[in-house]
Amino acid sequence: MRISELSQASGVSIPTIKFYLRERLLPQGTPTARTQADYAEGHLHRLRLIQALTEIGGLRLRDVRAVLQAIDDQALGTHELLGTVHHALGPHLDGEPSHDEVQAIAEVDRFLGGLGWRVSQAAPARRTLARALTTLRRMGRDADAAVFEPYARVADELAAREVATVSSTGSRLEAVEGAVEGAVVGTVVFEAALVALRRLAQEHHSARRFGPARRD
Amino acid sequence: MRISELSQASGVSIPTIKFYLRERLLPQGTPTARTQADYAEGHLHRLRLIQALTEIGGLRLRDVRAVLQAIDDQALGTHELLGTVHHALGPHLDGEPSHDEVQAIAEVDRFLGGLGWRVSQAAPARRTLARALTTLRRMGRDADAAVFEPYARVADELAAREVATVSSTGSRLEAVEGAVEGAVVGTVVFEAALVALRRLAQEHHSARRFGPARRD
Repeated sequence: MRISELSQASGVSIPTIKFYLRERLLPQGTPTARTQADYAEGHLHRLRLIQALTEIGGLRLRDVRAVLQAIDDQALGTHELLGTVHHALGPHLDGEPSHDEVQAIAEVDRFLGGLGWRVSQAAPARRTLARALTTLRRMGRDADAAVFEPYARVADELAAREVATVSSTGSRLEAVEGAVEGAVVGTVVFEAALVALRRLAQEHHSARRFGPARRD
Repeated sequence: MRISELSQASGVSIPTIKFYLRERLLPQGTPTARTQADYAEGHLHRLRLIQALTEIGGLRLRDVRAVLQAIDDQALGTHELLGTVHHALGPHLDGEPSHDEVQAIAEVDRFLGGLGWRVSQAAPARRTLARALTTLRRMGRDADAAVFEPYARVADELAAREVATVSSTGSRLEAVEGAVEGAVVGTVVFEAALVALRRLAQEHHSARRFGPARRD
């Protein structure tokens, strides 16, 4: 198909497609004339994936590139590929950790070790968790990592179910791209849903405990 | 205490305190000289709360004002107060909902009704949840609101525990301010922790399912 058809089929504008081509995120099409090229189904899949990574995942360009390189690296297994996606999703906490944060990271590591979770040292979520701990302390709470225990329990329950739905057939490129897209959508979209539902459930329980009596 | 002492005790800079005074978020001190005023413990509590709302909660100035007004409104019960805090936390999705979104909101409402949750029509999390649903569909998933069921179950479990820890003694101003601060910290900080833990648990389950065999 021509670039205009690719744009129509994907819902991505022609300037954006040209940007992705220049940035080598999208492979060049097959030249058909001096200023024209032909694009295949593979381009459409890749475009859809890039959109998922940037729009849903909020990935920076360099992280999109890292994910696409991981997909194209035949030597990489499913776990390493999902790890690359996860770490690209961030959050990217810049700067050297403070003294308090270093201590909190060590506490988080002991906590995760106690749960028996296999997570890499590079996982950005470790530091997010350590930040939550230092914030609680800065707000005057006498908290240690055990305060996260109920959250870890439900996170474990959800993740076990979620990972079970990831297809392990990763031989064909499209299947891998599909799995990566699924991981991004699953992580980011259901994360938003979980956060929203927790707030709604808090409102509900607040109504039950503190609200006016129900009229039904 | 003088403004410099208030700054030292709270960790909030003098220009920021002056800004809060000008914006009437912080009540004026008792004048002691033409250019000096005396600040009390109450000012320190209020400052700490404003910091929690803006720094941890990420609240916009107008939402901070709404929360403080709700605190000062003696007629407001605990549930209404917590509701004000919750809605101020957002997210603030601007603009008219699209046709797809209106339909998704109606589906979310039926889903929440089916759960028996008492949540106000104004709760911003309804729309967040509807957005998650429309995103899933845009990504080609054949999803209805029932897909959120496992998330609703764990959200309910967590919220029941969380609301139980909110103090219901709200007669004194400081107690109310403490409860509001607790709600903000509890909602935002544990939300970050929950999100981080889910990602770590996903990595762990991915390692178990797809990773190299464990060497222990």
